[in-house]
Amino acid sequence: MPFQYLEYYNGTTGLSVGVNKVLFSEQTPFQKVEVYETDTWGNLMTIDGMVMLSEKDEFVYHEMIAHVACFSHPNPKRVLIIGGGDGGTAREVLKHPSVEAVDMVEIDEAVVRASKLHMPEVGDFSNPKLRVLYENGLTFVNDVPEKYDVIIIDGSDPVGPAVDLFKQEFYDKCHAALNENGVLTGQTESPWVDSYHESIQSVFRAVDNVFDYSRMYLAFIPLYPTGMWSMAYASKGIDPLSDEVKARIEAGLKDFGSSLRYYNAEMHSAAFALPGFVRDIIR
Amino acid sequence: MPFQYLEYYNGTTGLSVGVNKVLFSEQTPFQKVEVYETDTWGNLMTIDGMVMLSEKDEFVYHEMIAHVACFSHPNPKRVLIIGGGDGGTAREVLKHPSVEAVDMVEIDEAVVRASKLHMPEVGDFSNPKLRVLYENGLTFVNDVPEKYDVIIIDGSDPVGPAVDLFKQEFYDKCHAALNENGVLTGQTESPWVDSYHESIQSVFRAVDNVFDYSRMYLAFIPLYPTGMWSMAYASKGIDPLSDEVKARIEAGLKDFGSSLRYYNAEMHSAAFALPGFVRDIIR
Repeated sequence: MPFQYLEYYNGTTGLSVGVNKVLFSEQTPFQKVEVYETDTWGNLMTIDGMVMLSEKDEFVYHEMIAHVACFSHPNPKRVLIIGGGDGGTAREVLKHPSVEAVDMVEIDEAVVRASKLHMPEVGDFSNPKLRVLYENGLTFVNDVPEKYDVIIIDGSDPVGPAVDLFKQEFYDKCHAALNENGVLTGQTESPWVDSYHESIQSVFRAVDNVFDYSRMYLAFIPLYPTGMWSMAYASKGIDPLSDEVKARIEAGLKDFGSSLRYYNAEMHSAAFALPGFVRDIIR
Repeated sequence: MPFQYLEYYNGTTGLSVGVNKVLFSEQTPFQKVEVYETDTWGNLMTIDGMVMLSEKDEFVYHEMIAHVACFSHPNPKRVLIIGGGDGGTAREVLKHPSVEAVDMVEIDEAVVRASKLHMPEVGDFSNPKLRVLYENGLTFVNDVPEKYDVIIIDGSDPVGPAVDLFKQEFYDKCHAALNENGVLTGQTESPWVDSYHESIQSVFRAVDNVFDYSRMYLAFIPLYPTGMWSMAYASKGIDPLSDEVKARIEAGLKDFGSSLRYYNAEMHSAAFALPGFVRDIIR
């Protein structure tokens, strides 16, 4: 029976999306995972009533969280994804020819199962370079057997199981789990929503404390609250706006053909420009 | 009595905002103008059920439509605003010390009246440099008594009275009404909404036909459909990304103090970077 999905995100302001059919609905030990069939966005996944991705707009988030990291790093071979159970981030990372191994540490197997079943184009789960571990990302980074070149924090909102992904201790461990020149990216909510500011500030204070470079960048994501989404970039030694990185993007993108619909050399740099009201949040 | 305002914009997808009180509601000869009191966005104006602005987010739209034009032009003295009845665009234009006269041609006096009554911080209507004319912008540009340096098309969506603001004939007349080095900017809807593509293409084809430079640029506007809004830039001879313009912005912004919350030198350039899926719309 069709109904309107409604996600309130700023007082009484919310996103409403018509749902034709509920395709998946499961209360897991961690959260409620649902997939809806919609009219204009393809299938839509929510966790605890918050939009995670739709088939139509997921490319923005996944391209921006993956390629800003993987093009900034001079030679990413080993990549760790915390969360990312839908598989979209891993799919984008695996487009980089240098990448040899992607470890995806997803706490909730239901997210992967729902994605495989109802968003088959999003993941690339049969890729032999990808290893999916159903573990808690927080404890996984405590002691990694082998360090990584890139870590991507693709967690959900700072309520529920993802809340510790916004804290200093976690970023200390990520720093320790990264090789020299290591790069980290992660999602850090919408600057327009006042109730997120504390989480945003917490992440940027944390990465600023331990990394040589830390910057915020932005992406237009239509189904996320307010449509403006922030991400964190942090690195041991790599400035994401250096001429070296720009040259690497120009050269590297030749291998990508038309597979990218949002990320390009101009968007890489432009994403780091911040309006004054956003700068003020993390000052 | 509180209720939820709901604007559908893409099939069954929409924005929902809680309304405490209806402050203004008038069916004018042109359209239905309403102002609502909301919980988190201040007062919110809609026209024919589509959000025009809220007190909290209006600075983005007004700064980006005004300053991209006024900083690109080397010495803007005479500025024409088509639409813009809420007064926010004129307020931003009037911050430029070189500006001597702003003509605002608004078809519907009710928009100005509603703004003065319920959004008193948005307009700067007592400024002696501002002249408000209640006329049809389309016929006004047919034969302007004196040409302009900058024209800003601050109209509503391409339904109702604003539909002709998306057509070739209008841009031909704007071109004729501009001095040498003249610059035009205008709002051109969301690239994420398929039903807008024809209007977007129509504007960019039109400006490309008659102007030396034409470019799309983007802004994050949380209460507009999808949060990604496009604007058109067109000029007789001025490249908005030239080193000359960049130097002018750096020098000029010193006079603006902290009055700008979105526009800055970096955002000026970054706004012109386009994702591939957006480039494809106007290719």
